[in-house]
Amino acid sequence: MITRKEQQNARRRAAEMLRAADVRITDAEADGIEVVDFGLGRLEKEGGQVLTLVQTERISVKVLALFPNQTEPEHWHPPVAGDPGKEETVRVISGTLYFYLPGENTYKEGFLVKGKEHCYSMRHEIVMRPGEQITLAPGVKHWFQARDEGVVMYSFSTIARDALDQFTDKDIVRTTKVVEK
Amino acid sequence: MITRKEQQNARRRAAEMLRAADVRITDAEADGIEVVDFGLGRLEKEGGQVLTLVQTERISVKVLALFPNQTEPEHWHPPVAGDPGKEETVRVISGTLYFYLPGENTYKEGFLVKGKEHCYSMRHEIVMRPGEQITLAPGVKHWFQARDEGVVMYSFSTIARDALDQFTDKDIVRTTKVVEK
Repeated sequence: MITRKEQQNARRRAAEMLRAADVRITDAEADGIEVVDFGLGRLEKEGGQVLTLVQTERISVKVLALFPNQTEPEHWHPPVAGDPGKEETVRVISGTLYFYLPGENTYKEGFLVKGKEHCYSMRHEIVMRPGEQITLAPGVKHWFQARDEGVVMYSFSTIARDALDQFTDKDIVRTTKVVEK
Repeated sequence: MITRKEQQNARRRAAEMLRAADVRITDAEADGIEVVDFGLGRLEKEGGQVLTLVQTERISVKVLALFPNQTEPEHWHPPVAGDPGKEETVRVISGTLYFYLPGENTYKEGFLVKGKEHCYSMRHEIVMRPGEQITLAPGVKHWFQARDEGVVMYSFSTIARDALDQFTDKDIVRTTKVVEK
């Protein structure tokens, strides 16, 4: 749960980050940036800001902004009826992205969210810089993080069904509740 | 057919356009820009420069640069075995894009390539500026053009099978032949 004011502030900050990263977006798009707290109510620690540029029945294009030291919780994209699940290519636009997925434990430069260490089980670390990208097959568990400068990145994928994403942290609710206050 | 020198010059110009439009690409990506003359041998008039960022069995992301007054010939993406055909979203990054597709004849601001007027049959004109985009269903005939300043644009799509694209101009060969000279 976040307040309307938190949502508006986060949206404005994210739009500024996108524009500072030279991503050309319209004012209407900036106003439509989704602020996601994963139902955890501590956006600055675990959350993300998402602008959806394309969403059809076949593909999805999003631009994500992560604030400094913000972490997107570990999740995966399961198969659903008639679809093997979301395949996703993540490409960094600005900042440094700390990305974690299955494989040898090379965890070194990121940090585990305090009190939630058990919800971040993937420890194969990839450090990605602008122009670098990685493609994830459906079902691959992953989480990612920004450090001091924040990150702006693309997510190019097959159809996104965000509400069906699976999370390691069972406290997570994908729909963010916004309260007037 | 183009010469190696034409290819290298076009590739360099396109990379400069992408970078001037703040698209962040690696040097390796710049070196991989595809220069396409559609087998017509007059790249400046009919052609395009294409950087493929993502190409999997499910999706494709390309950045296209069109030089000033360069036209991408009329074409469409047909169904192929097991696939209804490529669905494509075009989004302008810089410059003004003159885009033509089926519908009411609103042709006004573009121009038809001289001597090839019969190969440009779609006359519903859409003028698109940075941050504007359009999604095309598979099979929809379209062509597009840059004017004085050139255009840089994204193409987000389902799997691209460029070699299977269909063109109104039967002189077209999708594979560009490069000759050393």
